[in-house]
Amino acid sequence: MALIPPRTLKGFRDLLPAQALRRARIVRTVEDCFRRHGYAPIDTPVLEYAEILKGKGGGDTDKELFEFTDKGGRAVALRFDLTVPLARFVAEHQGELAFPFRRYHVGLAFRGERPQRGRAREFLQCDADLIGAEGPEADAEVLALMAGVYAALAAALDTGPVTLRVNDRRVLTGLLEALGHPGAPGPVLRALDKRDKQGPEAVRDELAAAGLDPARAADLLAAAEPAPTPTATLARLGAAVGQSAVGRAGLENLARILELLAAAEVPPDRVALDPGIARGLDYYTGMVVEARLERLPEIGSVGSGGRYDDLAALYTRTRLPGVGCSIGVTRLMDALEALESTAGAPAPRAGTADALVAHAGPAASPRAFRFAARLRAEGFAVEVYPEPRKHAQQMRYADRLGIAFVFTPDADGSFHGKRLADGATRTVVDAADAAAWMRDTAALGAARAPAAPGSEATP
Amino acid sequence: MALIPPRTLKGFRDLLPAQALRRARIVRTVEDCFRRHGYAPIDTPVLEYAEILKGKGGGDTDKELFEFTDKGGRAVALRFDLTVPLARFVAEHQGELAFPFRRYHVGLAFRGERPQRGRAREFLQCDADLIGAEGPEADAEVLALMAGVYAALAAALDTGPVTLRVNDRRVLTGLLEALGHPGAPGPVLRALDKRDKQGPEAVRDELAAAGLDPARAADLLAAAEPAPTPTATLARLGAAVGQSAVGRAGLENLARILELLAAAEVPPDRVALDPGIARGLDYYTGMVVEARLERLPEIGSVGSGGRYDDLAALYTRTRLPGVGCSIGVTRLMDALEALESTAGAPAPRAGTADALVAHAGPAASPRAFRFAARLRAEGFAVEVYPEPRKHAQQMRYADRLGIAFVFTPDADGSFHGKRLADGATRTVVDAADAAAWMRDTAALGAARAPAAPGSEATP
Repeated sequence: MALIPPRTLKGFRDLLPAQALRRARIVRTVEDCFRRHGYAPIDTPVLEYAEILKGKGGGDTDKELFEFTDKGGRAVALRFDLTVPLARFVAEHQGELAFPFRRYHVGLAFRGERPQRGRAREFLQCDADLIGAEGPEADAEVLALMAGVYAALAAALDTGPVTLRVNDRRVLTGLLEALGHPGAPGPVLRALDKRDKQGPEAVRDELAAAGLDPARAADLLAAAEPAPTPTATLARLGAAVGQSAVGRAGLENLARILELLAAAEVPPDRVALDPGIARGLDYYTGMVVEARLERLPEIGSVGSGGRYDDLAALYTRTRLPGVGCSIGVTRLMDALEALESTAGAPAPRAGTADALVAHAGPAASPRAFRFAARLRAEGFAVEVYPEPRKHAQQMRYADRLGIAFVFTPDADGSFHGKRLADGATRTVVDAADAAAWMRDTAALGAARAPAAPGSEATP
Repeated sequence: MALIPPRTLKGFRDLLPAQALRRARIVRTVEDCFRRHGYAPIDTPVLEYAEILKGKGGGDTDKELFEFTDKGGRAVALRFDLTVPLARFVAEHQGELAFPFRRYHVGLAFRGERPQRGRAREFLQCDADLIGAEGPEADAEVLALMAGVYAALAAALDTGPVTLRVNDRRVLTGLLEALGHPGAPGPVLRALDKRDKQGPEAVRDELAAAGLDPARAADLLAAAEPAPTPTATLARLGAAVGQSAVGRAGLENLARILELLAAAEVPPDRVALDPGIARGLDYYTGMVVEARLERLPEIGSVGSGGRYDDLAALYTRTRLPGVGCSIGVTRLMDALEALESTAGAPAPRAGTADALVAHAGPAASPRAFRFAARLRAEGFAVEVYPEPRKHAQQMRYADRLGIAFVFTPDADGSFHGKRLADGATRTVVDAADAAAWMRDTAALGAARAPAAPGSEATP
C-alpha cells in the first residue's frame, strides 16, 4: 500500500513536547494572572457565519479569511481574531452577563497571510477585555493587568523585562489638528505605526502620501518622539497640541493613567509614554499600547491593546465601550527560542516525569506499579517503563527526557535509586523514602532536581 | 445601518463564564493528572490536508468532515479527532521523539453530525496515548491513568465515582471462534457495542444480520454478560473461549491488567470486567475500555480508550503499537449540568475575584489601585470597580458574580470591608489586614469564602 506523506499545511505547525510544555506554561501563567485581576474565561466557536467576520478587521483580514460553504449551504469562516467574536458574543448574551464585563479568552485564530516568523496561519490568542466601562481607571486596569502578566512571565519563564509603550489616539488627532492637517487621521496613524518596522524614510513617504507636507511631517515626527521622562513627554505634547480639545483630553487621560499605575506599584521603568504608537487597527479610539521585549525588541511587539468605543455596534444598539489587550504567545515563544539559540542554551525538557521506575522483569511489575502510585500520591510525576528492555536502554530514555531519578526494583523488596544529574545512588525501602530523597535534592537546588510538588501549577 | 444578527452556527456554541470556568477546571485537573503520569503535551493544527484525514475514522467520519479548498487550491479539512493527527505526527516526527512516547493533547475536533446532547459539531478532546509499547503493563498504565483522572475529577468537581469497564477485543474474537462463527468479527463487535444504547432486541437483530444464528447469538450474549466478580467473569469466559488461542491471550492480558491495577491501589470497585464492551472503532485490537459515570450512566460513556496495534501504518513503515484514552470533557460538562438541574443546585460562579474594591470617587482611585495590587500580591484575586457608580449598584455587581468581600476606601485612609455571605463588616487598615480577615474566613469554611491562595491551580 502506498504511504500518505505525513505533512502539515504551509504556515501551520506541530508543537513537539518541549514546545508544547513551554506554551502551556506561558498560557497558564497568563491565565492565572488574568484571573487574579477578576477576569473569567469564555469560549466561542472557531467557525462563525462569514457575515459575522467579514468587513470587520480592516486591512487584509477579508482577503486572508479561511472561508467556505459548509454541507448545509452556509457561508462560514474561521475566525481571524478573538475580538470580533467577542463583539458578537456580548451582543448575543448581553442579558446574561454582569457589566462591567471582564472576560479573557484563549483560543485559536486563523489568517491566510504569507507565512513568516511569528506570523503563522494558525495562532493562539490570549486576550483580556473589560467591556462596559470608560475612563482612565478602566484603561489603567488593563495596563496594570498587562504589567502583571509580563512580570509573571519574567519570573516563570525568564523572558526578561517587557516595557509597555502607551499612547492615546486622541493625542495624535490633537497634533494633527494643531498642525492644521485637513485630512482624516487614519492614514497618518497607519504611517506612524510603521516607524519601528520600516524606518523614518518610509514613514515620511507615507505621511506625504497621506497629504502632510514635509514641514508638517517633520513637526509631527518631532512631537511624536518620546522625551527622556513621561513628565517631559507630556509637557512637550501639551505645547504641541495647543488648544486642541481632543488632544488635551488624550493628554489628561495619559497623565491620570500614569498616576494610577504608579499607585498600583507598577515599576516606572516598565511603562513608557510613546506618542508614536498608533496601532494599525481602525477600531481603537483612545488609549493604545504595545509591549516591547527589552532583550529582543526587533522581534516586534509581544502584546498590544487599547480602547475601542463601540465594537459591538454592528450587532446591537446597546453602546458597549471597551478596553482590552492581547498577549502575543507565539511571538514570545519565538523570542525565547531565538534568545536560547543565541546563548547556546540547552534545549528545554520534553518530558514531565520527575522519576522513572525501571522495568525489572514481569515479576517485579506489580511492585513497580505500587511504588509509582505511592510516589505520585507524594506529589511527584512518575512513570513506569512499560516493557522489559535492557537497563542501559531504560537509563538512556530517562536521560533523554531529563528525568531526574530512576528507581529499579531490587530482589529484596527495596528499590535502587539513581540521581542522574550526579550519578548519586541510594537504596530506598519505599515511596516515602524515595520522596524524602527527592525533596532533599530539590531543596538543595541540585541540577535537574524535580520541581517541588505542586510547583508546576503556580507561576 | 442594519444590524447583523449575532448568532452562532447550528451545533456550535458559546461558553458563558461559569461554563468556561468549569471546563477550564476540568481540563486543568485532567492535564495535571496526565503530567503526574509522565505524559507531555503536543499540539497539531486543527486544519490538515484532507488526504491525511479521509478514510481513517471508519463509519461516518468522511461524510461528517468539514472540508474545503483553501485559497492556495489545497484540499483541506478540519480534524475530526486527535488520534489520526497523532498518527500523522508520530510518523512525521519519529526521529525527534523518545519512545515509548507518552503524549497528551487537548484540542478541538469537528464533526458535522446531527447536533444532539453531548454531540456538538465542535468539541474539546482530551487524549493521552502511549506509543511504542506492548504488553499488559502498557495497557494497565493507561487504565491507572484514567482511574487517576476520574478520582481527581471526583475530588475537584464532585462528579461522583466513575467505573472503568474493561474488555479485550481478543476475548470476543475467541468467543466467536469457539462458537464456530465463520464471518469477520467486525459487525458482531459493532452489534454488541450497541447493547447499552439500544437494548438486547436491537442487538439480537444486528447479530442475526451479521450472520449469527439465534442459538449462537444467545450463547454469545450470555457469555458477554459480566459475572458478579472479575474472577468469576474470567472463569466463565475461560470456559466459553475453550481452546481459542486468541481468546486465551485476551483473558491472560485481562487477568494481568487486573493484578497490576490492584497493585497500583486502584480501588477494586472502580474497575469492572465487561465482555460486552466492544468499542465501535475498527482500529482497536486488544484491551478496550469505557468509563461510566455512576450517578448518571444514561448520559453515555464519559471516556474511552483501548489498544491499537498499528495506527501510523498509513504514513510510515515503522511499526508503532499504541494504547490510549480520551476523557469526555463535553459529556462530563453535560452530566454535571443535568445533575445540578435535577438537584436544584445554585448556578456555578461566573466570576473569579475574591474581593472587589469599590469606586469611591476619583480622588480615592489611586488608593484603591494600590490596595488591590497589594491584596493580589497576598495571593487573592481582586478587581477594582472601574467607574463612579452608586454604592448599591457596585454591591449588586459583587453579589451577582459571587465575590465574597467588598472593600470601600474610607476618607481616613482605611477601608470598610464587608463579607457578603453574612453581612459581617470590618475596618481594615491595609491589604495585609484585609488578607488576614479573608484567610480567617476561608479557614472557618464560611459560605462563599475565597479560595485559599493558589488553591485554584491544584486539583
